Amino acid sequence: MDKQYVLGIDVGGTSTKMAIFSLAGEMVAKWAISTNRTNTSLNLPVDISISVKKTLEEYAIKNSQMLAAGVGIPGFVLADQGMVISSVNLGLENYLIAPLLEKELGFPVCVDNDANLAAAGEKWKGAGRHVSDLIFITLGTGVGSGILLNGEIFRGAGHAAGEIGHVTVLPQGGSPCKCGKYGCLETISSATGIARLAKENALLNKNSKLYDLMRQRELTAEDVFRSMDEGDNEARVVVEKAMKYLGIALANTANVLQPQYLIIGGGLAAAGNSLIRPLEKHFNFHALQRIKQVAKVKLAELGNDAGVTGGAWLALKQYGKHN
Amino acid sequence: MDKQYVLGIDVGGTSTKMAIFSLAGEMVAKWAISTNRTNTSLNLPVDISISVKKTLEEYAIKNSQMLAAGVGIPGFVLADQGMVISSVNLGLENYLIAPLLEKELGFPVCVDNDANLAAAGEKWKGAGRHVSDLIFITLGTGVGSGILLNGEIFRGAGHAAGEIGHVTVLPQGGSPCKCGKYGCLETISSATGIARLAKENALLNKNSKLYDLMRQRELTAEDVFRSMDEGDNEARVVVEKAMKYLGIALANTANVLQPQYLIIGGGLAAAGNSLIRPLEKHFNFHALQRIKQVAKVKLAELGNDAGVTGGAWLALKQYGKHN
Repeated sequence: MDKQYVLGIDVGGTSTKMAIFSLAGEMVAKWAISTNRTNTSLNLPVDISISVKKTLEEYAIKNSQMLAAGVGIPGFVLADQGMVISSVNLGLENYLIAPLLEKELGFPVCVDNDANLAAAGEKWKGAGRHVSDLIFITLGTGVGSGILLNGEIFRGAGHAAGEIGHVTVLPQGGSPCKCGKYGCLETISSATGIARLAKENALLNKNSKLYDLMRQRELTAEDVFRSMDEGDNEARVVVEKAMKYLGIALANTANVLQPQYLIIGGGLAAAGNSLIRPLEKHFNFHALQRIKQVAKVKLAELGNDAGVTGGAWLALKQYGKHN
Repeated sequence: MDKQYVLGIDVGGTSTKMAIFSLAGEMVAKWAISTNRTNTSLNLPVDISISVKKTLEEYAIKNSQMLAAGVGIPGFVLADQGMVISSVNLGLENYLIAPLLEKELGFPVCVDNDANLAAAGEKWKGAGRHVSDLIFITLGTGVGSGILLNGEIFRGAGHAAGEIGHVTVLPQGGSPCKCGKYGCLETISSATGIARLAKENALLNKNSKLYDLMRQRELTAEDVFRSMDEGDNEARVVVEKAMKYLGIALANTANVLQPQYLIIGGGLAAAGNSLIRPLEKHFNFHALQRIKQVAKVKLAELGNDAGVTGGAWLALKQYGKHN
């Protein structure tokens, strides 16, 4: 029977998102399951497979109609070998996920880093449509990125490209980063970094909304953006600082790579213009004239669907007839 | 008659270097002429052509044996259109060099930015042999770079990639750069930047060799490296600062692109280990563990021949049968 569908899988620390796409790129079904964090190496392929089989049944799709699946994993992945070298979030090491999952599912599986696939998803169906060179930056607990050059995922000579979260932006007086270095972008412009800056700044001004909030509960990056939108000056100072260093890091990357888009996704992207406007200002200040004529900062469009969409794109690319 | 040779041309502001290579990649002849800076758009193709014809005659090479030429130009070049958009050094704007030179020479001509070709030259015959992903950084009056990814010149979406000289490394208190921004890498780690830092530091310590030299004549970056090698502490402080910010910029670039080599060329590379050792220290401090397992800083090997070698490589690549 002719192959008619591909499957995108986005494995996260909390939930595993999945979606079935037609070969023409239409999303047919979308669902999620909890990620089992005990014995993940054994449970992951089985849990995914059971859930996929159930959904295929619901949609009256036969296994033989499935072309392939593309899986995104948060961590260091050797895409060409179908292997997860390490995923701290999932507790996986040197884990040959592709053949294991292939055996359970009964159709081919390819795998990549989750940010690479989110970048590919935004290129295929989201903010990066019609361009060939883009960097997708995910702002969440950490700062990650996926790079597409000439329409292809760029993985770097050692499959570890895209570590924009660990560029040094504060060579002096930077905070320690979980990578072991100091002053990494991630220590300032991630959700965690923004919350940390907010706590520091709130203590300096006990009249600020941030200080009131902080006395009630743990401050979050969302609190900071909301307080800024409500006119709180301390919150504005924090957002300015976070977007200044993100703007410098993105402009520096653009000065070297000159992509067409720098697409901002991840949880913080929900702040929308409150984030993108100060970011654009700093980006434009530090990007060369000739670079920024081409390279633009913009918001992601697919939200949580970017990963599964990119997974389906990779499956189609690796196993489709026309690619 | 079978094509047997390619020509590499490296047009600089002072001299134009040329070399003939066999198709197997052996350098057969190498020479240089002065670059005529008056009426360059008219004189450049004619001067090059006269000199090439004379050399071909000397070596008893017939024009019909020439496969093609590759030309490097300092400036913004549209390689696929054979056009120089602007070269401040040569005083050229929107200049269709490839067809003009082709007409004079009588064989096909391709053109690219000079740093891109130097990068390609080092990959073909120099420090980048056997790797596919490298960044060639040229440290001279300014700081430029050429990028090779997957063995191909990477030009960026708007043909202006590689502007590593204009990444912002000092967001606060940086010196003005000729690009219009402040705190660019070029203001610190170029020959000009190092000479400027040396003057500033020499004034702070009138017992230093640098101060003695400065009273006699204009300080150069070479003076700084030599004085450091002779034990001058002020010179060491200047080199440390220049290599610290170069190390950060290279590590940040490597964290995103993960090339195999970051190759240091240009006039300053003559300082050899006096430059590369402090640079490596700072690079390794700011590069992620997983990145620096693959990405290494090293010195260029071809010196002034990198550009003509890369020009020949491009000609062979564009017009050769096997490429």
